[in-house]
Amino acid sequence: MQRIYLDRIAAAPLCPEALEAMLPFLRESYANPQSLHRDGQVVLEAVETAREGVARLIGAEASEIVFTASGSEANNLAVKGLALASRVKGTHLVVSAVEHPSVLNAARALEKLGFSTTVVPVDGQGRIDPDAVAKALTPKTILASVMLANSEVGTIEPVAEIAALCRARGVLVHTDAVAAAGSIPVDVAALGVDALSLAGAPFYGPKGAAALWLRKGTRVLPLVDGGVQEGGRRAGTENVAGLAGFGRAAEIARERLDARAARESALRDRLIDGVLGAFDRVVLTGPRAPRLPYHASFCVEFVEGEALLLSLDMKGIAVSSGSACSSKSLKASHVLLAMGLDHALAQGSLVFSLLEGTTAEEIDSVIAAFGPIIDRLRKMSPTYTEFLKEKRS
Amino acid sequence: MQRIYLDRIAAAPLCPEALEAMLPFLRESYANPQSLHRDGQVVLEAVETAREGVARLIGAEASEIVFTASGSEANNLAVKGLALASRVKGTHLVVSAVEHPSVLNAARALEKLGFSTTVVPVDGQGRIDPDAVAKALTPKTILASVMLANSEVGTIEPVAEIAALCRARGVLVHTDAVAAAGSIPVDVAALGVDALSLAGAPFYGPKGAAALWLRKGTRVLPLVDGGVQEGGRRAGTENVAGLAGFGRAAEIARERLDARAARESALRDRLIDGVLGAFDRVVLTGPRAPRLPYHASFCVEFVEGEALLLSLDMKGIAVSSGSACSSKSLKASHVLLAMGLDHALAQGSLVFSLLEGTTAEEIDSVIAAFGPIIDRLRKMSPTYTEFLKEKRS
Repeated sequence: MQRIYLDRIAAAPLCPEALEAMLPFLRESYANPQSLHRDGQVVLEAVETAREGVARLIGAEASEIVFTASGSEANNLAVKGLALASRVKGTHLVVSAVEHPSVLNAARALEKLGFSTTVVPVDGQGRIDPDAVAKALTPKTILASVMLANSEVGTIEPVAEIAALCRARGVLVHTDAVAAAGSIPVDVAALGVDALSLAGAPFYGPKGAAALWLRKGTRVLPLVDGGVQEGGRRAGTENVAGLAGFGRAAEIARERLDARAARESALRDRLIDGVLGAFDRVVLTGPRAPRLPYHASFCVEFVEGEALLLSLDMKGIAVSSGSACSSKSLKASHVLLAMGLDHALAQGSLVFSLLEGTTAEEIDSVIAAFGPIIDRLRKMSPTYTEFLKEKRS
Repeated sequence: MQRIYLDRIAAAPLCPEALEAMLPFLRESYANPQSLHRDGQVVLEAVETAREGVARLIGAEASEIVFTASGSEANNLAVKGLALASRVKGTHLVVSAVEHPSVLNAARALEKLGFSTTVVPVDGQGRIDPDAVAKALTPKTILASVMLANSEVGTIEPVAEIAALCRARGVLVHTDAVAAAGSIPVDVAALGVDALSLAGAPFYGPKGAAALWLRKGTRVLPLVDGGVQEGGRRAGTENVAGLAGFGRAAEIARERLDARAARESALRDRLIDGVLGAFDRVVLTGPRAPRLPYHASFCVEFVEGEALLLSLDMKGIAVSSGSACSSKSLKASHVLLAMGLDHALAQGSLVFSLLEGTTAEEIDSVIAAFGPIIDRLRKMSPTYTEFLKEKRS
């Protein structure tokens, strides 16, 4: 049985072009890009080509790109690095309630060093209200971090609006664009932010390669001090093959952005319509639009997301329940709770995230497999039995 | 012309076994190891196998390994993470003067957060005196970081002795074993340290994969907060292919450690004897023994290391001048200055670091090429002209 993989928010396959771009640096071109000899210079050129590819995807300049090993590292470098570099100006941060754990926990770590954080709520669709951010700003606020798109519920946030009002108050703005970059148009000038995180894996680049874009002149304290790499903003020998793959994947993502998004959003809508049309008491989480093109997420009443996930897995279908990073903790998603879902419903969360190669047949197979799984799990559910009883009486 | 690559301290080729171990995770097995579905579980197994391979190389348990993206990151996690986690006990650190920039600059970064550092001097061979470390300890000292081997001068440091006296005083000990692990026997129990950094690239693993070993129960504050990866000690999606290659390279390094070291040290001695025998006013830096088996380093009087490097490069020979990380800064090496070399001599530094595949013929070619280069550069050197004049008069 051919498996159906709809778990792009956790990981995506490497595109063949990115793999091709990596192989020379896993085989013959193994020198250190910081070496002065010609073996090193050849490798340095590849790193700088990758930097340009990544920069172009977000409308930035190559020198503004700091390579990191993950979106989480980029988020930590942004939150901790910008906050610590601005410490003399103030020690207050603003983040939204639906940020990735790497942003939320970075802010929490700063609290041990004397910073404080205001967490801004979201509406029922996971949307951050720009006015709520404005109200959270104080004279001591130095940084706001609001994500561009949420990988658990597909919401696209009003970052440009939030950035404008923060920057008018002299507050730096970071956006976590890991779920967005390469899938929807992202332009740092249009967003008006000071820092932006992205990663290669969500758009078919390799794991282990990501970046923080920092507006020219923005001061940051490194997480990794040491050598001269990344302009002194992140030391350590470059993961050359990974960066080469990341850069190539970024070029391809830019070329195919519209075509991919059109195809994906049609399949996404087919999945959303199919699921909502076929099953009772299953709700879409996040908005219908604007929404990440590859993303459909639901809560299934009366059952646990993990049981749904494992049952689908037995049928050859790979999906996520909640965020990839918290998938092993059995807590309900902080995103769904922040959106006001009750705890029981939030437990029934499931995220389908589509690949470039996903087909309509696969979507239809998933919808067909989903029904019997929901029925079987509900039959074992005490809350469902209760619900049926109440309905009959 | 076949190039001769003697710059292992900057980068080494990937061994074929490590590349083989990586490819499945760049092709078909692309899932996230944190995913609950079976695609993810297969990948998780590979990550844990890699962890065991790395642990075994240093006599550790797999659960004590925290994967990082570079030796520099491992050093920063050790210095910053251990210091910040022990802050209530004290705020004083001890490091040696010949540590890697990632250790020295991590300590410097901590000074901005209220820590202070004592830098312990070394002797003319780059050796740290354990008594000097003992004298530097104060009741406020919480951490000492002393490297196991120096990549610029090949010195192997008395870490076990230093660790014993630090631990007797309740001071945590970290050792940077990046230049040592995989090339000389490294056993965390025998060393008696609390934390040890190593990287895959120096022993034919991929760039972008390294680790910090932390003795069970040792508290550390993460550099990268976020998800549950690495037991909460380092968040971010795992660089699965890189880790698989790292683990495999570690297994092979363990199997071949003695054979490689015997072969390398014979060629190293051939190079040292050849150079010292053939050329006047060229000195070995670091000791003859004990010395890293793959490492021969010199200072050539009256000429600049960079000019030597570029001239050798033109003859098809790739080497380093000083450390890989500071190779682009034109400052004399902090290691050589700490060893008491005068500034002019320290500028003439050159490091030859051998690969597993280096041959006696290559060594002989290098010695033959070296002489005319030294002669030519000295003829252009004002200090050499001065020296000849003084000699004649």
